Amino acid sequence: MLTKATVKLLQSLKDKKGRQEQGLFLVEGTKTVLELLASKIEVKSLFATQVWLTSHQQLLKSIDDCNTITDKELKQLSCLVTPQQVIAVAKIPQYQLSKIDFKNKFTIALDTIQDPGNLGTIIRIADWYGIENIICSPTCADVFNPKVIQATMGSFIRVNFFYHELNSFFEAHKNIMVYGALMNGENLYQTKISKEGFLLIGNEGSGISDDLLKYVSKPITIPKLGKAESLNAGVATAIICDAWARG
Amino acid sequence: MLTKATVKLLQSLKDKKGRQEQGLFLVEGTKTVLELLASKIEVKSLFATQVWLTSHQQLLKSIDDCNTITDKELKQLSCLVTPQQVIAVAKIPQYQLSKIDFKNKFTIALDTIQDPGNLGTIIRIADWYGIENIICSPTCADVFNPKVIQATMGSFIRVNFFYHELNSFFEAHKNIMVYGALMNGENLYQTKISKEGFLLIGNEGSGISDDLLKYVSKPITIPKLGKAESLNAGVATAIICDAWARG
Repeated sequence: MLTKATVKLLQSLKDKKGRQEQGLFLVEGTKTVLELLASKIEVKSLFATQVWLTSHQQLLKSIDDCNTITDKELKQLSCLVTPQQVIAVAKIPQYQLSKIDFKNKFTIALDTIQDPGNLGTIIRIADWYGIENIICSPTCADVFNPKVIQATMGSFIRVNFFYHELNSFFEAHKNIMVYGALMNGENLYQTKISKEGFLLIGNEGSGISDDLLKYVSKPITIPKLGKAESLNAGVATAIICDAWARG
Repeated sequence: MLTKATVKLLQSLKDKKGRQEQGLFLVEGTKTVLELLASKIEVKSLFATQVWLTSHQQLLKSIDDCNTITDKELKQLSCLVTPQQVIAVAKIPQYQLSKIDFKNKFTIALDTIQDPGNLGTIIRIADWYGIENIICSPTCADVFNPKVIQATMGSFIRVNFFYHELNSFFEAHKNIMVYGALMNGENLYQTKISKEGFLLIGNEGSGISDDLLKYVSKPITIPKLGKAESLNAGVATAIICDAWARG
């Protein structure tokens, strides 16, 4: 039986304020929780049905705080429309930007990506292409929002995120090429994207902020054959990362 | 002042059953409604704030049924978290599959794409690349679901959709190449995608149905450099359509 305090704690993690205060976030579903347990991210506690706990006993030895919950409690705690059998509470990893060398790497920089689904999709794309780091402007959605975590399909475990003001970030990395997804750039099919660089993706509605344009060394455009005004931010990221991977 | 019957009608269009019974669907937001008014799709009625109606008077001459609504009514009728100023009720267009010649065209076929956001994104991708037609298995989400319409960003106006059982569809078009997005296919970067063909995209979780695999003449795979297990269905569609557009 869950205490009121526990329910309150878990509920609080659905909001950014609660996550920041506690330094914790929620992860749901068997597949992702198992990947989480095998990762470096620390799991603080686990809430699962009896059936789930019994069938995963071996993996749970290192977790002190395993709790049996009923289907009803699961439904109450879950952020999903169709709750799965397990919810983990994990510690928000603290990645240190100063320790990262961006040389010889391709890195995604996000300017105000606000839709949690888009942010999650972009993290999944980064993981697919082996892109290790994502720099998010402080105006981006919170990576540890349950909707983002869900949309990453486990990829949040393998990608590092840094929230940092992008002006000063680019100012500090002026020796690295910045590719910007823009409407009037160079034709993507005629551009060779170098192995080292930043890919800057702008906000869903308004694109790259005016004050960041000066850092874009190579504006690139995905050629359009039809009439849609734009592509979804996640889709544009995918197509450019794919062009980078093609080499 | 809206009548109860009108409110009930509009509410009913949020569900597939209501849309099928009435042959109508909802379109929200100034930008998309203006595109709709300029299209061949018939607008049956319009519900908008006084300010909106006044500023768009010239465009509304052909619409018999224009209704002024209050912000409160707008909020009640809207499917959006942040309602915009106008809601149109349009007639579901009836596209006739038998009239379409798939020769010399690239066409997307969707097997059980169930997430409305994914379906909407795929329609937007088709519109970007000038792909005219999408064949949806009857198990796909409904294109006229307000969430799909919203995610297309107006592209539903420029793309034709056909709901048809895919087995018999491919059986009837055996002379046209079917590219299938699969995990163990040919490397996309080493495959030339012909101008004419079908691109078959499978379900978000389970991929292409077993009974459709026999129709796939060329399985293709997007090379992976990292560790994500899969890509989102919309993202995979985009990368393959982009490879097709590159030629």
